[in-house]
Amino acid sequence: MDEYRLWEKRQKDKGTDIEWVKSKLHSFTVETPSWGYGDSGTRFNVFRQQGMPRNIFEKLEDAAQVNKFTGMCPSVAIHIPWDKTDDYDKVRRFASDLGLKIGSVNPNLFQEDEYRLGSVCNADPAVRRKAIDHLTECVHIARATGSKTISLWIPDGTNYPGQGDFRKRKEWLLEALSELNSAMDDDMRMLIEYKTFEPAFYHTDVADWGMAYAFAVKTGKKAQVLVDLGHHPQGVNIEHIVAFLLDEGKMGGFHFNNRKYADDDLIVGSINPYELFLIFNELISGELDPRTRNTAENIAYMIDQSHCIEPKIPAMIRSVLNVQTAYAKALLVNRQMLEECRNRGDVLGAEAVIREAFETDVRPLLQVVRQEAGLDPDPMKAYLQSGYEEKKLERDK
Amino acid sequence: MDEYRLWEKRQKDKGTDIEWVKSKLHSFTVETPSWGYGDSGTRFNVFRQQGMPRNIFEKLEDAAQVNKFTGMCPSVAIHIPWDKTDDYDKVRRFASDLGLKIGSVNPNLFQEDEYRLGSVCNADPAVRRKAIDHLTECVHIARATGSKTISLWIPDGTNYPGQGDFRKRKEWLLEALSELNSAMDDDMRMLIEYKTFEPAFYHTDVADWGMAYAFAVKTGKKAQVLVDLGHHPQGVNIEHIVAFLLDEGKMGGFHFNNRKYADDDLIVGSINPYELFLIFNELISGELDPRTRNTAENIAYMIDQSHCIEPKIPAMIRSVLNVQTAYAKALLVNRQMLEECRNRGDVLGAEAVIREAFETDVRPLLQVVRQEAGLDPDPMKAYLQSGYEEKKLERDK
Amino acid sequence: MDEYRLWEKRQKDKGTDIEWVKSKLHSFTVETPSWGYGDSGTRFNVFRQQGMPRNIFEKLEDAAQVNKFTGMCPSVAIHIPWDKTDDYDKVRRFASDLGLKIGSVNPNLFQEDEYRLGSVCNADPAVRRKAIDHLTECVHIARATGSKTISLWIPDGTNYPGQGDFRKRKEWLLEALSELNSAMDDDMRMLIEYKTFEPAFYHTDVADWGMAYAFAVKTGKKAQVLVDLGHHPQGVNIEHIVAFLLDEGKMGGFHFNNRKYADDDLIVGSINPYELFLIFNELISGELDPRTRNTAENIAYMIDQSHCIEPKIPAMIRSVLNVQTAYAKALLVNRQMLEECRNRGDVLGAEAVIREAFETDVRPLLQVVRQEAGLDPDPMKAYLQSGYEEKKLERDK
Amino acid sequence: MDEYRLWEKRQKDKGTDIEWVKSKLHSFTVETPSWGYGDSGTRFNVFRQQGMPRNIFEKLEDAAQVNKFTGMCPSVAIHIPWDKTDDYDKVRRFASDLGLKIGSVNPNLFQEDEYRLGSVCNADPAVRRKAIDHLTECVHIARATGSKTISLWIPDGTNYPGQGDFRKRKEWLLEALSELNSAMDDDMRMLIEYKTFEPAFYHTDVADWGMAYAFAVKTGKKAQVLVDLGHHPQGVNIEHIVAFLLDEGKMGGFHFNNRKYADDDLIVGSINPYELFLIFNELISGELDPRTRNTAENIAYMIDQSHCIEPKIPAMIRSVLNVQTAYAKALLVNRQMLEECRNRGDVLGAEAVIREAFETDVRPLLQVVRQEAGLDPDPMKAYLQSGYEEKKLERDK
Repeated sequence: MDEYRLWEKRQKDKGTDIEWVKSKLHSFTVETPSWGYGDSGTRFNVFRQQGMPRNIFEKLEDAAQVNKFTGMCPSVAIHIPWDKTDDYDKVRRFASDLGLKIGSVNPNLFQEDEYRLGSVCNADPAVRRKAIDHLTECVHIARATGSKTISLWIPDGTNYPGQGDFRKRKEWLLEALSELNSAMDDDMRMLIEYKTFEPAFYHTDVADWGMAYAFAVKTGKKAQVLVDLGHHPQGVNIEHIVAFLLDEGKMGGFHFNNRKYADDDLIVGSINPYELFLIFNELISGELDPRTRNTAENIAYMIDQSHCIEPKIPAMIRSVLNVQTAYAKALLVNRQMLEECRNRGDVLGAEAVIREAFETDVRPLLQVVRQEAGLDPDPMKAYLQSGYEEKKLERDK
Repeated sequence: MDEYRLWEKRQKDKGTDIEWVKSKLHSFTVETPSWGYGDSGTRFNVFRQQGMPRNIFEKLEDAAQVNKFTGMCPSVAIHIPWDKTDDYDKVRRFASDLGLKIGSVNPNLFQEDEYRLGSVCNADPAVRRKAIDHLTECVHIARATGSKTISLWIPDGTNYPGQGDFRKRKEWLLEALSELNSAMDDDMRMLIEYKTFEPAFYHTDVADWGMAYAFAVKTGKKAQVLVDLGHHPQGVNIEHIVAFLLDEGKMGGFHFNNRKYADDDLIVGSINPYELFLIFNELISGELDPRTRNTAENIAYMIDQSHCIEPKIPAMIRSVLNVQTAYAKALLVNRQMLEECRNRGDVLGAEAVIREAFETDVRPLLQVVRQEAGLDPDPMKAYLQSGYEEKKLERDK
Repeated sequence: MDEYRLWEKRQKDKGTDIEWVKSKLHSFTVETPSWGYGDSGTRFNVFRQQGMPRNIFEKLEDAAQVNKFTGMCPSVAIHIPWDKTDDYDKVRRFASDLGLKIGSVNPNLFQEDEYRLGSVCNADPAVRRKAIDHLTECVHIARATGSKTISLWIPDGTNYPGQGDFRKRKEWLLEALSELNSAMDDDMRMLIEYKTFEPAFYHTDVADWGMAYAFAVKTGKKAQVLVDLGHHPQGVNIEHIVAFLLDEGKMGGFHFNNRKYADDDLIVGSINPYELFLIFNELISGELDPRTRNTAENIAYMIDQSHCIEPKIPAMIRSVLNVQTAYAKALLVNRQMLEECRNRGDVLGAEAVIREAFETDVRPLLQVVRQEAGLDPDPMKAYLQSGYEEKKLERDK
Repeated sequence: MDEYRLWEKRQKDKGTDIEWVKSKLHSFTVETPSWGYGDSGTRFNVFRQQGMPRNIFEKLEDAAQVNKFTGMCPSVAIHIPWDKTDDYDKVRRFASDLGLKIGSVNPNLFQEDEYRLGSVCNADPAVRRKAIDHLTECVHIARATGSKTISLWIPDGTNYPGQGDFRKRKEWLLEALSELNSAMDDDMRMLIEYKTFEPAFYHTDVADWGMAYAFAVKTGKKAQVLVDLGHHPQGVNIEHIVAFLLDEGKMGGFHFNNRKYADDDLIVGSINPYELFLIFNELISGELDPRTRNTAENIAYMIDQSHCIEPKIPAMIRSVLNVQTAYAKALLVNRQMLEECRNRGDVLGAEAVIREAFETDVRPLLQVVRQEAGLDPDPMKAYLQSGYEEKKLERDK
């Protein structure tokens, strides 16, 4: 605790409102995805791990472990049909008993044979119908599980020049969004995800934030944009996009992960932790501004990764802690000093305010925050010592 | 002519409407920029060439040569203050006597010392005022020269995290656009250009088409988006963006050039000619669709390149001819067959329709079109033999 | 034939040695891979097609169709263990009866559970042993099938900073290459492939041509580099690398495909046909230079693609024809004029020589070359009309 | 000091050898470039700053300030002809009086009109001769100034397909390197820099580390590779290249800077500080390994940036401090624990060892190290308060 006291003193000397920082950390949550607890891989191979959950209930049990040790993951995203079941109320109660709730509902528009040339953008109206019906089915599932969010990734696209009619496909997509919008309750929202490429390799129908934004504006106020950190071309300034969408009231959710190359789906914060911090810096700036506060405070933070070689639950804990670390550092930015530097054109001064917050070691703070919440200060160690990893193996028997 | 007759027969057998193709080619025009006739270079060096024009009048003389031999460059973009003069009516008349008119007027927001930290997005209101005044000055120049287009590149951005407030800068930019909009006549339009990076290296205030589009929508119907082919991250599908903007009525103009790496500003069509063809394929599709025809037919096609090592006028002729070649090939796409392939999900068939149009050698066609227009069938050779290159050298005396 | 005669005349006027061009085309071959005839997909899904071959024999039957209609694909690459069998002599005879021979043998170091953290670069010596044994097994299979080529893709790498020791892994890899080298006959060669990323996402042990080259130099004269067109970062000039490797005597083989983003494995020549042409331009330059001729003439040209949504055999025919088209265009480059332009510093002249060869429509030439070889001038159409696609469906019964 | 004592205790508990860390920090040096003290810009503009040095002597005075406050910049790179003078012995003595020595000598092969189409790779033998003479002139200057290093950037390349003969240019380059090598003393070395693109935009004659490595191997033991952090395509794993070159004994020097897009030349560590840390992690690993120690300990660390909008001396101080920070963090990596994790295949464990060293706040350590060296613990603040910035302005009078 000496370390923390010294840490706190130094922050207070700099003008940090420690209580505000702590309260923000106490209320900060990140959603984990049910599919993050099972096997996943690349197109080259799926390396099978032991003790994998066999259904949505076991996935929820695993997710509950992450919440138990981090204290910040009370909701779980589900994916239809991977988590399909005949009794969603049972899912809801099972989750509730574990201290969890169902978060976003994710339709799947990429795994049916009919979707070979697209789902809602397919030239065949029968396929489009099937895809739209699946979307509205997901609204029912959301209602049944208590979820308020449809997280919508349109995986449609083409592989070759000429293969599809860009503008017709755009119209078809708008029709699907419109129908989905009508099916949704007024207190639900849809998050429109974009992605540059993959699984299509020539064009993607929602290729970038600009398209997702345009679709969201046309669809109406229930629609916002979802930013997946791995879905941009190299070199794109994501924090700038986040600020832009915040300003427009259309920043709705995140899929956290990290990449060095394409949509690598590695642990968030493991490749470029500064980028993650800079994104949170914009989000907190948005929370502090009355014009953008409401949008900023309602953003859905979600993990979406593919742990091909890592043990699943530890990888998820690591991911969540990395997000918490970035968030904590961003809370420490001296915003008054930053604004002064900006106003007087002090480039190096402004840069220093940001960088120094990032260079601050927030581990003393986070340990105290966890203790205040009744958690072990080292969630990873506590989990690994809990025996759950061994217990999971019984599933294979 | 045997060659052309055989070529024409083969096209007619495929169902091509040759007269329509020719009429499109006869009316197709590309604007060249005044600054393309003078020295330019990289940050490492500007290699000085001989016979460079010393003022806007000599630049217009050079531009007139390109129009004389290609028959498709009747307008010239000007750049303020590079082409500043005290008698714009004289410029207009001088151009007219050369068979030219003044095309887009390009404000310069990057070469004043005050713009070190930005122009219309500068934190200093006095700098913003100066920048906006320059924009409205350009409207006056447009009026005086008979131009109807303000081609607006906002070079503002920051070099370091923290340096600028993204959202405040967005507001300032909107204010500037609004004031410019008010200053413009109803029959004028502004083309908002976007660029990923350079001269700023951390963030650019109008970084991508999505931002330019959002600014154009907010500014109103006089505002559209300008696509510069070199202003995207690697891997971006430009023809898809073009189709999207067309569909939204916001596709306003092009800056043609080509790049392998960043904003290399090489001769259009010299690095990836297929991409240029695919862009024109979308534009012609837009012209043929009643919903997008008006937008498509009013697009301003402009060259914007930096010929660091090439002779200026030949490089411009080469550029214009490459654009014409891509356009001609795109006119040959069998759109009925394309639609049939798309409708029946014939991926390879649709791809073949597009690729085969590209593989067609259009030189026989273009030679005939030029002859019909009273031009030499080989504009480059004709120019080089005209003696103008030698005559230009007198400027150095 | 009028068209060809006119075409030929025009080429002869330009100084093209048509007989040489034709003889090059008649002897040009491209290897197709056995795995290209079965289902493949992305990490998101494998769309199952009908009539898929069930074993190496049926794959050879499909490959024989491609050779039958294109006349240029007499060898087939095999992949172990996908094509594993207990009687390789039978495979060899079966192929021979179809007019085929077995081309390169491709070891698989990515699909065993033990390879989760690498194969020949794994920290566990037992795994490395297993992997090396597989490599030497492939030498035996090569001997048994009459193949002279081991095509070696090392898929090893790490997903996170710190995960592996770069330099130790380099040593382990060298040991494996050395052992493979010793196992190989003197008239065999190994082709070392490189790849920037995937399936590993932080580092790949043979990440670029420079590493593959260094490993090939250390391994000895049996080792050369294999260039897969999709295995580079965006913006890399592949034709330059090809020329460099040629000059060093280390250019050994190609995996042809095309990409817009990452290792998209689309049909070669479908996204950037000019790049493919420019690569062949270097290869032909290498064939004409006594210093590099031997290397250039022994390059193994192979298709390596993933046809996720296309019918398999037509996609392979399309690929092979696109390679032939690029090769034919490159044969037409006027190399004497090119050298003259280069020597006098005529940038636009040199560029024009190259571009004009690319702009030439080689379809009249290729049709005649096919007829001379007893083939149908339109291989795709002839194949589709042959009834083989329908016959294949019997496999599903 | 309480903070440091606590910091030290925590490190000792983890097994860190603090004295070794401090000794490494005390002997660590970074070279600054003379050209970093004058105006620089982009191709769009050079914003002029006040108080700029007017010659090599004033640049050395500025460099001495950076050394005075950071204690780690005792050598200064010079650039010929920018720093050309008729009395290099005077330069040497002037530097010595300031506590400085002349570091690397940098030839300039890009600013003469003759170099428009290349210098040592120019098709014109007279231009090649001129370029080689300049290289050997730089050896004389190195001798006269006491420098032992020729830092060689070959800016040659082409802008268009066809423009140059890749393989001939390679031969010409080798001839130049050979002649330079012969001119150099045995205790001198040449560092061969590579760069993907710019100022040439189609191909660069030394485009990547593989080419620089091959040229260095052929040239002989005096030649090594120089890694500029901004000279790679997007996504390249630089730390892997560094480890590879170290292992080959060819890692010779660094040009430090940072980029988000292309060769942005921003302050090192300002955009991706984790990457800088990971590079140092490999370098320290190399220093600790007897096989690579000699190479690692002789690496020339140099700043090479372009401060377009920042005040020059503060930007240089910031850069040097960022390098020191990354180096200090890399010294804290627990290498024993790292190796254990790697050996047992503990992916998350190994990653944690690396990440946690990076997350450690090294400011308490660096402040103590500076105090031990008789420096102000806050070099930036101390410099800004020193009055030198104001004194510099007298140069403008």
